[in-house]
Amino acid sequence: MTRKANPSQINSKNDASLLLDLFDNFLIDCDGVVWLAETLIPKVTQFLQLLEQHNKQFAFVTNNSSKSRQSYIEKFESLGIHGISKDRIYTTGYSAVLELQKMGIPLGSKIWVLGDAGIEDELADEGYVPLGGSNPLLDQSWNPKNPLLKVDPEVKAVIAGSTNEFNFLRIATTLQYLMYDNKRIPYIGTNGDRNYPGPEGLTLPAGGSMVEYMSYCSGRNYIDVGKPSKTFADIIFYDTGFDRAKTIMIGDTLSSDIKFGNDANLGNGHGTLLVLSGVTTVPELKELITHPTGDDDSLVPQFYVDSLTKLYELLE
Amino acid sequence: MTRKANPSQINSKNDASLLLDLFDNFLIDCDGVVWLAETLIPKVTQFLQLLEQHNKQFAFVTNNSSKSRQSYIEKFESLGIHGISKDRIYTTGYSAVLELQKMGIPLGSKIWVLGDAGIEDELADEGYVPLGGSNPLLDQSWNPKNPLLKVDPEVKAVIAGSTNEFNFLRIATTLQYLMYDNKRIPYIGTNGDRNYPGPEGLTLPAGGSMVEYMSYCSGRNYIDVGKPSKTFADIIFYDTGFDRAKTIMIGDTLSSDIKFGNDANLGNGHGTLLVLSGVTTVPELKELITHPTGDDDSLVPQFYVDSLTKLYELLE
Repeated sequence: MTRKANPSQINSKNDASLLLDLFDNFLIDCDGVVWLAETLIPKVTQFLQLLEQHNKQFAFVTNNSSKSRQSYIEKFESLGIHGISKDRIYTTGYSAVLELQKMGIPLGSKIWVLGDAGIEDELADEGYVPLGGSNPLLDQSWNPKNPLLKVDPEVKAVIAGSTNEFNFLRIATTLQYLMYDNKRIPYIGTNGDRNYPGPEGLTLPAGGSMVEYMSYCSGRNYIDVGKPSKTFADIIFYDTGFDRAKTIMIGDTLSSDIKFGNDANLGNGHGTLLVLSGVTTVPELKELITHPTGDDDSLVPQFYVDSLTKLYELLE
Repeated sequence: MTRKANPSQINSKNDASLLLDLFDNFLIDCDGVVWLAETLIPKVTQFLQLLEQHNKQFAFVTNNSSKSRQSYIEKFESLGIHGISKDRIYTTGYSAVLELQKMGIPLGSKIWVLGDAGIEDELADEGYVPLGGSNPLLDQSWNPKNPLLKVDPEVKAVIAGSTNEFNFLRIATTLQYLMYDNKRIPYIGTNGDRNYPGPEGLTLPAGGSMVEYMSYCSGRNYIDVGKPSKTFADIIFYDTGFDRAKTIMIGDTLSSDIKFGNDANLGNGHGTLLVLSGVTTVPELKELITHPTGDDDSLVPQFYVDSLTKLYELLE
């Protein structure tokens, strides 16, 4: 990709209308874009209705693997966004399961999970058998004689993602599977995110840090099925049939959402919209504009706007 | 360092005597060299006595931070090795504390610990105040309102090492300190070891994987005070006054012990002895000899021998 011009701010009705003209399909990140933790960003419901009125298609794309697509639907509903169907939601738990299928791992196979119910539920939904994960036996303190440390030779893949139940027994059991049979069991990770802003002003460990942990510990690479990987983009475009040239990614994170859109060449390299309602601050965006580095081109959005609230108000 | 000749096997009385002539000071790794878990390697006691009879000096150098030097003395005693004094033992918990002093962090300062008592005890011994670590309040399940997540602004450094009590609350609290005040609190890690062979045929997560975890999660580098870092070598030579040119490192791990000896230029580049009683297998050594790679020169030992048992028997 050649060096982009500076990002264009969407700041008038004309800008906003142009954006709507340029793209048919909208991939939308959730946290920081649609909601902040448990609070809906104002007018997102109206924005989605407006997209539908204009015959635009959209799907939600999140690096979160802790919740299943069903849990996402429930969250949308609880925030007053109705009628979102499962096939418009891409969690990394679900993309991990689609990757298993792409790899030809037969339904009914046992899959070892380091992660939460969001991965286990998607596996079970599609007909795989999750092991590990939220099993409360893995909450126990360390004992090298714990029978769970014995590898089940029927396990056909390992999936790692985020879990607040991260502990020594979970990493040690997962490590046995990653080392087993000369490291031959495939290893899928939900993403490589380092951290994220949590409640109470905290910076919290992101799922990707746990994926990378197992990678370092085992000396193995993983198949990354989250943003910004091209693997995730391939999965989504295969599944939705969207035309990449007419698709834009809307997100709040440069290293995940914007890089994802650029690396996947959405909108022929122009399909990225940064919203400033999440993790990226105005100074960070300005720094990117005033001190562009050739290396970080993939982090530069084509467009930016304060929030979906603002975008809706401009279009209204 | 120029490319070494192939490692020389110590396999005769002459070889062994030459080794004893060449070096005055012996740095000895523990697990895999002196003992295997809880079992003493035969004739190590006699080997140490022989060193003393020849007026050689020795010190034990381990990447383990879980146990204090006092616990090491107790382990030596329990295995029948008597009279080892604290100042002959270098754990990475202790080297972390020496590094704090070198950095000018005043005694009495609070230090946040991700790790076990081996770090906390050394800190307290030298007059620092450890926080975090084995505090049982950190065994609790995740709650973002846990008061331990509030940074104590008096904390002057973070030390991370191995702990079997690794859990989400411990990594989240440690992350708050690493991110605090624009990442200004110094971060010391006990080593970067990935894994190690544990009991029951298990491969277990090593302390370095936890150090690297916090590094990835926070996006920060750490000061490495373990093998193979030169920092650890500097600490040991400053503290012991040993002459590097007359010092040899004896260990069982290429990436840790042998690299440590080579990178620190022990014995003018010849001060490394691999023992085959621990993690490195004969095929691995042969692979290193028959397929030498220029990049990995620092992993090539100058000498190798079956074990300290064998070395003692040759010298006897």
